Amino acid sequence: MFPRVALLGVGYIGGSAVLAARQAGLVGRVVGYDVSAAAGAAGQQKGVLDATASTLAEAVRDATMVLLAAPVRSLENILHALAKLLPAETTVVDVGSVKSNVVAAAEASLPSGQFVGCHPMAGAEFCGVEASEAGIFAGRVCFLCPPRNVATAALDAARAFWGGIGCRLISIDPQTHDRLMAAQSHLPHVAAYALAGALAPSLVFLDGTTNEASPTTSLRDTTRIAASNPAVWRDIFIANAEHLLPLIEELEISVHAIKAAVAKGDAAGLETLLAKGQSARKRLVNG
Amino acid sequence: MFPRVALLGVGYIGGSAVLAARQAGLVGRVVGYDVSAAAGAAGQQKGVLDATASTLAEAVRDATMVLLAAPVRSLENILHALAKLLPAETTVVDVGSVKSNVVAAAEASLPSGQFVGCHPMAGAEFCGVEASEAGIFAGRVCFLCPPRNVATAALDAARAFWGGIGCRLISIDPQTHDRLMAAQSHLPHVAAYALAGALAPSLVFLDGTTNEASPTTSLRDTTRIAASNPAVWRDIFIANAEHLLPLIEELEISVHAIKAAVAKGDAAGLETLLAKGQSARKRLVNG
Repeated sequence: MFPRVALLGVGYIGGSAVLAARQAGLVGRVVGYDVSAAAGAAGQQKGVLDATASTLAEAVRDATMVLLAAPVRSLENILHALAKLLPAETTVVDVGSVKSNVVAAAEASLPSGQFVGCHPMAGAEFCGVEASEAGIFAGRVCFLCPPRNVATAALDAARAFWGGIGCRLISIDPQTHDRLMAAQSHLPHVAAYALAGALAPSLVFLDGTTNEASPTTSLRDTTRIAASNPAVWRDIFIANAEHLLPLIEELEISVHAIKAAVAKGDAAGLETLLAKGQSARKRLVNG
Repeated sequence: MFPRVALLGVGYIGGSAVLAARQAGLVGRVVGYDVSAAAGAAGQQKGVLDATASTLAEAVRDATMVLLAAPVRSLENILHALAKLLPAETTVVDVGSVKSNVVAAAEASLPSGQFVGCHPMAGAEFCGVEASEAGIFAGRVCFLCPPRNVATAALDAARAFWGGIGCRLISIDPQTHDRLMAAQSHLPHVAAYALAGALAPSLVFLDGTTNEASPTTSLRDTTRIAASNPAVWRDIFIANAEHLLPLIEELEISVHAIKAAVAKGDAAGLETLLAKGQSARKRLVNG
């Protein structure tokens, strides 16, 4: 179905998508390109790539499908470069966690409508193509954000690819996507990184090698996603600053309010704050 | 081994401990007392209690072991009341998440050394005796904080009880315990409640009943413990304010620093903050 695929950015998500597509018999030859030569080599070792290209142009030559899986902040430049390299028939999809910026960049750079913004919700805290797994997409949501001028063939190709590896497809406009993700993914990552960072000064007695009782399940769950790749999340936070900043502000206010109630020994006020969190959690998860 | 047990405070942890002790054949008749009559009735229904007492005095009459499982803030008053009701041979143990205050109160109220501060690390976000489960203690740590004047018989009884239901026993002084718990349990709870609370204004589009894509694993894991009982955690936070407040301060600083870096688009500064969190998370969990 996709005889020649170019994977631009060879990491955990892109690698996993190719492995899943191979398992589903969707792809033929896959050529990778990454700013890190080591990532390309690891991708071949892992069975993700058939070959590694040393330039972007070489990677996409003859490709019938381009899978953009580089950090969010680099996508605009890559799309700009692709405009000069690709025929209008080659479908381009990405996997980025923020969609407004990349869809706008694609509308500007690829006026033929060959791009479809995609966000498979199958991330994890793992880093690197070495950790890729074919099984992570089955049953997971993949958001599709086609630009206004999308070509039918490109949209069909994107649906065939993500649907073919088991994703549940949801079409959504980029702004709504980014607002939703700011709340249900990006802010939780901010909280996890901030919590783990706040505990750094306590590592002298909390370190797992010396602390007989560590870690609690609470600590494990609340900090799990702080193990995620800092370069990836740096880009996501900055790219989605418009929607994320007001939420970080809310988080700061919440933390401060709890601190003030604890400091004053204000049991009733504290219970109200915690009950608000409990009630929100229940609605977030159980509906 | 414990023919007559009084359970003071009939909730998830106390109920689970009694169920586990019944399964292990450690206890005979168990009489419960709770400020809520409904909790007592539910405890009998669940098979935790053989009978419910209408006063503290009635509950502990003839008891050979008293299991204190009421919210942390009530323990001081209960210990004070028990001083007039119990013979010196009756062992008293608690299950509280904060130990300095209760150990100090026991030293003052029960000078005979019949109390042992205990903290089985088997909490969960469930509330109420109805949710009790016998299996939650197997292999989990139970901290023991005996007062300086502890009676040998009381310490032996506490070890026999928690060890008998499968806990791994760790003796620790109350201050060290409270400092450790502030970091690895109480601060994660602050973060989870604050995060869930910060998302309350976003529920209009995040609600699980209307949001097709919700919840992400990230959101689920980072807010799980925000489902915990607000009255329980209100007491824990206030009782452990000494150790917890400086950590909440660190969390506030972390959140603020991430916000400032995102607002400025300071990619390098943001990556440094996230890398600090990632590195701390790895040491917290993998050692």
